[in-house]
Amino acid sequence: MANSLGKLFKLTTFGESHGPAIGGIIDGCPAGYSLDFNAIQQELNRRKPGQSAIVTQRKEPDEVKFLSGIFEGKTTGASIGFQIINTNQKSKDYSDIKDTFRPSHADYTYTQKYGLRDYRGGGRSSARETANWIVAGAIAKQILSNIKIHAYTSSVGSLSLPNTYKSLDFSKIESNPVRCPDVTMANQMIDLIKSTKKKGDTIGGTITCVVQHIPIGLGEPIFDKLHASLGHAMLSINAVKGFEYGSGFEGSTMLGSEHNDAFEINGSTKTNYSGGIQGGISNGMDLYFRVAFKPVATLLQKYDTINKAGEAVSVQGKGRHDPCVVPRAVPIVEALTAMVLLDHTLLHNATKF
Amino acid sequence: MANSLGKLFKLTTFGESHGPAIGGIIDGCPAGYSLDFNAIQQELNRRKPGQSAIVTQRKEPDEVKFLSGIFEGKTTGASIGFQIINTNQKSKDYSDIKDTFRPSHADYTYTQKYGLRDYRGGGRSSARETANWIVAGAIAKQILSNIKIHAYTSSVGSLSLPNTYKSLDFSKIESNPVRCPDVTMANQMIDLIKSTKKKGDTIGGTITCVVQHIPIGLGEPIFDKLHASLGHAMLSINAVKGFEYGSGFEGSTMLGSEHNDAFEINGSTKTNYSGGIQGGISNGMDLYFRVAFKPVATLLQKYDTINKAGEAVSVQGKGRHDPCVVPRAVPIVEALTAMVLLDHTLLHNATKF
Amino acid sequence: MANSLGKLFKLTTFGESHGPAIGGIIDGCPAGYSLDFNAIQQELNRRKPGQSAIVTQRKEPDEVKFLSGIFEGKTTGASIGFQIINTNQKSKDYSDIKDTFRPSHADYTYTQKYGLRDYRGGGRSSARETANWIVAGAIAKQILSNIKIHAYTSSVGSLSLPNTYKSLDFSKIESNPVRCPDVTMANQMIDLIKSTKKKGDTIGGTITCVVQHIPIGLGEPIFDKLHASLGHAMLSINAVKGFEYGSGFEGSTMLGSEHNDAFEINGSTKTNYSGGIQGGISNGMDLYFRVAFKPVATLLQKYDTINKAGEAVSVQGKGRHDPCVVPRAVPIVEALTAMVLLDHTLLHNATKF
Amino acid sequence: MANSLGKLFKLTTFGESHGPAIGGIIDGCPAGYSLDFNAIQQELNRRKPGQSAIVTQRKEPDEVKFLSGIFEGKTTGASIGFQIINTNQKSKDYSDIKDTFRPSHADYTYTQKYGLRDYRGGGRSSARETANWIVAGAIAKQILSNIKIHAYTSSVGSLSLPNTYKSLDFSKIESNPVRCPDVTMANQMIDLIKSTKKKGDTIGGTITCVVQHIPIGLGEPIFDKLHASLGHAMLSINAVKGFEYGSGFEGSTMLGSEHNDAFEINGSTKTNYSGGIQGGISNGMDLYFRVAFKPVATLLQKYDTINKAGEAVSVQGKGRHDPCVVPRAVPIVEALTAMVLLDHTLLHNATKF
Repeated sequence: MANSLGKLFKLTTFGESHGPAIGGIIDGCPAGYSLDFNAIQQELNRRKPGQSAIVTQRKEPDEVKFLSGIFEGKTTGASIGFQIINTNQKSKDYSDIKDTFRPSHADYTYTQKYGLRDYRGGGRSSARETANWIVAGAIAKQILSNIKIHAYTSSVGSLSLPNTYKSLDFSKIESNPVRCPDVTMANQMIDLIKSTKKKGDTIGGTITCVVQHIPIGLGEPIFDKLHASLGHAMLSINAVKGFEYGSGFEGSTMLGSEHNDAFEINGSTKTNYSGGIQGGISNGMDLYFRVAFKPVATLLQKYDTINKAGEAVSVQGKGRHDPCVVPRAVPIVEALTAMVLLDHTLLHNATKF
Repeated sequence: MANSLGKLFKLTTFGESHGPAIGGIIDGCPAGYSLDFNAIQQELNRRKPGQSAIVTQRKEPDEVKFLSGIFEGKTTGASIGFQIINTNQKSKDYSDIKDTFRPSHADYTYTQKYGLRDYRGGGRSSARETANWIVAGAIAKQILSNIKIHAYTSSVGSLSLPNTYKSLDFSKIESNPVRCPDVTMANQMIDLIKSTKKKGDTIGGTITCVVQHIPIGLGEPIFDKLHASLGHAMLSINAVKGFEYGSGFEGSTMLGSEHNDAFEINGSTKTNYSGGIQGGISNGMDLYFRVAFKPVATLLQKYDTINKAGEAVSVQGKGRHDPCVVPRAVPIVEALTAMVLLDHTLLHNATKF
Repeated sequence: MANSLGKLFKLTTFGESHGPAIGGIIDGCPAGYSLDFNAIQQELNRRKPGQSAIVTQRKEPDEVKFLSGIFEGKTTGASIGFQIINTNQKSKDYSDIKDTFRPSHADYTYTQKYGLRDYRGGGRSSARETANWIVAGAIAKQILSNIKIHAYTSSVGSLSLPNTYKSLDFSKIESNPVRCPDVTMANQMIDLIKSTKKKGDTIGGTITCVVQHIPIGLGEPIFDKLHASLGHAMLSINAVKGFEYGSGFEGSTMLGSEHNDAFEINGSTKTNYSGGIQGGISNGMDLYFRVAFKPVATLLQKYDTINKAGEAVSVQGKGRHDPCVVPRAVPIVEALTAMVLLDHTLLHNATKF
Repeated sequence: MANSLGKLFKLTTFGESHGPAIGGIIDGCPAGYSLDFNAIQQELNRRKPGQSAIVTQRKEPDEVKFLSGIFEGKTTGASIGFQIINTNQKSKDYSDIKDTFRPSHADYTYTQKYGLRDYRGGGRSSARETANWIVAGAIAKQILSNIKIHAYTSSVGSLSLPNTYKSLDFSKIESNPVRCPDVTMANQMIDLIKSTKKKGDTIGGTITCVVQHIPIGLGEPIFDKLHASLGHAMLSINAVKGFEYGSGFEGSTMLGSEHNDAFEINGSTKTNYSGGIQGGISNGMDLYFRVAFKPVATLLQKYDTINKAGEAVSVQGKGRHDPCVVPRAVPIVEALTAMVLLDHTLLHNATKF
């Protein structure tokens, strides 16, 4: 169950970073949709390593191959199997990390939980897994073609956009490698990531996601509230430490008289502190939320840690890693958002007949 | 599915605030546990209305009656049915809100989604539902008797405890009605809530939860990470706008060299920015997280809104409502935490044989 | 999970035969349906004890009380909580069966599995539970008002109707207490049950169910085939030993050239060995299946068995029990059928938008 | 959801008979088990086409490739991805069946349900899918190494073994291509299948499965009874029309005084009409059940049918098909049995801590 997301539009995944392939199965995809395969690959390209100077320089083409569920270009309603070959599995020497627990990685907890671990490059805990999500999310996006999902980097370290997205030009998001729609801020963020990288260090950041033209009525009361499903999905991304929607944590400092969203005659609201969701159900206003990412744990520095035998060891961090995970996580946030919204669309739709 | 939480220890609930009763069914409760019914009622008392001057003055005894699954004081492994009679369903006149959509409530979205709504006191969207969670959580707490769960009010409006919980005395939490372990701060919070109430206004706040003595290995990789399950549960509470664990949003401003938690020889860590979870799995350190609550939407003020016919109307807010939801939400946060931890204990345990 | 049936229209239940009440929660019921409460009670009456001379003479009114999810007579989309008070819990002396394992009951397996059991009248393993299913099924029937479900007693012991249902008059099913549409056969069955009862013995039988006017397209491929869902539901009924649909076990003796159902021009088929389902999906023809019930294990005879201490003991069977479970199981088969069909209607409907 | 089986040990599958590959993901496999890959391939060989003169002469090596979840020969607790390449996808001309609905196939219902279908060789409805189940079942068998599962052909057409399995020598099952442990009967069955094939016809049959050394306590009350899970799984196999366990349909003709299984002092029973399950829970006796298969729908004869345009057409059946599905279905029944038993082992185990 741990490897599935969704109730009706459901992705189940497999794959280790250094196994032969990763992949997944999408169950519950509606039938009869013509897929744009270039658009799917384009989403994978937005996530893939080596795309710019501020991300890991590993090279992976990340080409998806569909194995089922699509016939003559259309979804058939059958489960969609797909895989992405791992081309970059060098027969590397892992003896240095084989028995070592890297700080703030999953090495220690996996070993404790399972009694063994695939130590090659993080194994199942690697963020390589998220490429699978991009595939399912790209399909969901195409099916929900009326809904517009815009995620962007809203902060890197202490460099932060103001909280409102109203003045932003979303068409600028892809104009720069950090995926920040404010180009001046983008350049500062890029400089910060570069200087951090130079020191062998890493840095955290946040992603904001704005969803427009979402229909009224998505989300189920009590335990499948729309924002709870979104939060669950976002908290599944490696390195995520927090999720807030609408007014979020800042909303906790406000008065009710400030925070309440008064109605317009047409059912829209004058303000939108609710973030497009009331009682767990979308109200037709923009849905927006913010996701916090911690700095990547892998440093290109020397550090002290322990090994399986419980001995202190000193390790030199090396390899090709992201100094900041946020730019490549933007399409991941979008993909999960699309998956959650399609799942809730199906759930909502089920009882309308 | 919308009314269930958990995979193996699973609570399913029903009930409207002004129906004859609310209640639930707990499926998957381990057999053979002697229950302390007084302790369960005590948890309900911590949540119930009318318990102090800073919460709603409604009177509800909130007495739970168990209907099955317990025999001679012990759990039998059968599903546990329970109910809490609604004693406070006055045959009140609801004509004023029957056709009105209150701002930032679920009135509008429920009506749009379902085509009708039970308008009496919020119906299914009422936070009265959370009394059901307290029951299941109280049972989970007893089964997980080794684990200590401490939730407390960490902020009201702008009055906020510092981020660390290390200097706090958890035994003081229940010493004051706002449930803040810092008694000086508690008094300021109480004053703020009282003055807010006097204006007919409401105010938000945050709850921090610290879990101690949690075993290593709870949490499943990828989509059932321990913090994702906790986040999902917390985001299910009425009025919650955000969830963060460990370093949280602040962690997004840090460098990797600051944020990484170096190991001690025994597998514990020197710092705990990870918040007790690495790779989605508990590492034996304290688990801690923070939950943001918006201000209650119901004001005792006059306000403008719309009705079902799409007309502008003016409404006078009245009734007995919480000026700040946070003090009564403390036991709710604990209950959900216990439920999630027991569910993950069962999941983890399933494959160990 | 063990106490829930269905994926989208989902019933979760609780209750022991001699606890204060049994009941359930229906999650996923579509909103806006006006319920006929008399029709629900009428279905309960068809199952209830004491209804005729050939069933148990226990008296239970089996009145259902709805606690939520219905407002002004209509379903609201919220979970529907309901309960049926156990009025017939005599403060009886159970010392004779408390430590005894009755043959072919669940006494032994429950005790082994859970370490303890509620020994009063079968506890959770009592068929009293099925009254809960009647409630959910009666609601499902009303929502699926176009579909006609006819279950009837097709055999008692060796007295058996011929395999085809084509010549039967379903309007006669309720004309006799054994619920067999062939009145001559019904009288023979009644005589057989009475003579069996006189000897303190019990006897098995079968129920056939015919569903008419079922839409094309219900059922999901691979693991949620319509007949697999029906089989799962029927095999959940106490005392059921087998399930077959369409040609069933007899079909295993046939040639393909005999068994294939040739198409008419309009898509219907000339024969219907398929039983209305092809590839797991309804094809619009009558769906029919047969369910086998073993004889009730409780005999009014003296028998030898063992107790918890592993000693041989002799027990005198007593009480008010059904000599044949089949007549009262007819509405149970119908109820489960309606629940499965509504669940599959919602599943099928989810992706049509 | 339609493409998954199991709650904790869960297989999700994909693949069409003439796509590039079929495959699956096993979620919830316990960690630390060394797998015998030859044994897995051996199970696949028992199912694969072309293995004897009485099955389809199609050639498929059916070699499974594992892509994840196994490291240095051991299961890691991560999801196990696998695939089986379809080597036999001839670029055949499907124009004859493209628009035709073959009788008693899924052509008509898939087209009606989804609006389109992959017409190449049955697409998703092909029994080729069952090769995926063999892989998961073979792994489950290895983990449940103490439990012995013996399935065998118990009838072909009207040639039927007597109901009891007590005198059978299970070691003879694999000694003949029809997989019947009674060699004399096996030869008669083989002759019957051959003569049926010669006429271009097909024939049905039954498989009996006996499970020995099953622990007491597997199975969950109410809706996850062990036999309901087994029935659900068996009814998922293509061509299955019925399932019975223990006394089955014959049990419905018996008296309670005949059918009750009296206890021995040690808790075993003198007879076993219960089939090893009481109240849905295994009692430690042999578990046995029988599965009915209809004759294969594809005949090598000329037949009349209709096409998508609703016109009558005449089609000449051709190709390489099984005259009787039963011999190749024996390992499928075993695989599903192993999967269900492992899933219930995990479910049972979850609450024991």
